[in-house]
Amino acid sequence: MDLDFKKLDGLVPAVIQDAGSGEVLMLGFMNAEAYAATQATGEVTFFSRSRNKLWRKGEQSGHVLRVREIRVDCDEDAVLVRVDAVGPGVCHEGYQSCFFRQLEGGEWKESEPRVYDPAAVYGGKP
Amino acid sequence: MDLDFKKLDGLVPAVIQDAGSGEVLMLGFMNAEAYAATQATGEVTFFSRSRNKLWRKGEQSGHVLRVREIRVDCDEDAVLVRVDAVGPGVCHEGYQSCFFRQLEGGEWKESEPRVYDPAAVYGGKP
Repeated sequence: MDLDFKKLDGLVPAVIQDAGSGEVLMLGFMNAEAYAATQATGEVTFFSRSRNKLWRKGEQSGHVLRVREIRVDCDEDAVLVRVDAVGPGVCHEGYQSCFFRQLEGGEWKESEPRVYDPAAVYGGKP
Repeated sequence: MDLDFKKLDGLVPAVIQDAGSGEVLMLGFMNAEAYAATQATGEVTFFSRSRNKLWRKGEQSGHVLRVREIRVDCDEDAVLVRVDAVGPGVCHEGYQSCFFRQLEGGEWKESEPRVYDPAAVYGGKP
């Protein structure tokens, strides 16, 4: 059950999917420690590349991601985590999914409505 | 509509989701050229890190991924491509999804059946 963290300098991409709706909510990265913490706590923990530290999703917003199921791909260099998402949305910009824009005629267009006011939830960043 | 390819040495992760079933089929990487080719051809094209070249998914197997929709995340450093998948499966090991194993009691267990014989489709690799 070991993952191959070598291909990406100690990280694997982690796709987060809503276990109920099937919607892909976000993509983050895990190092070995984040992956172990995700399993130990049952809440998705990433490694934040910008802050260079572990980041339990929702630690600030309360919008945690409860693990329902962890899957691995054939090459063992990516994981798919199916979750129950707590709170109105995972995206720090106020949307249910971080993938809230869609390509239409060469432009990104919003494809889902904003569901909460990010300023009311985040003082700073996710 | 530009993507941020800088965070990952010229690549962005691309999550491939079946537009019909919602199943997450695989995760690949695109460089700017692969991303442009995906849009131009309407078929998912990755950058293969192991072979260091563009890789039109299905070029060998015929199991191409027809683009239905391209989404981008808030940070513009990951894409979600919703597709119609041609052929029995995307995984070169013979499964519909590359995420065919699930963590159960600390072990990876097969969570979906093999749907085709990879030896009959691939002489070599995907």
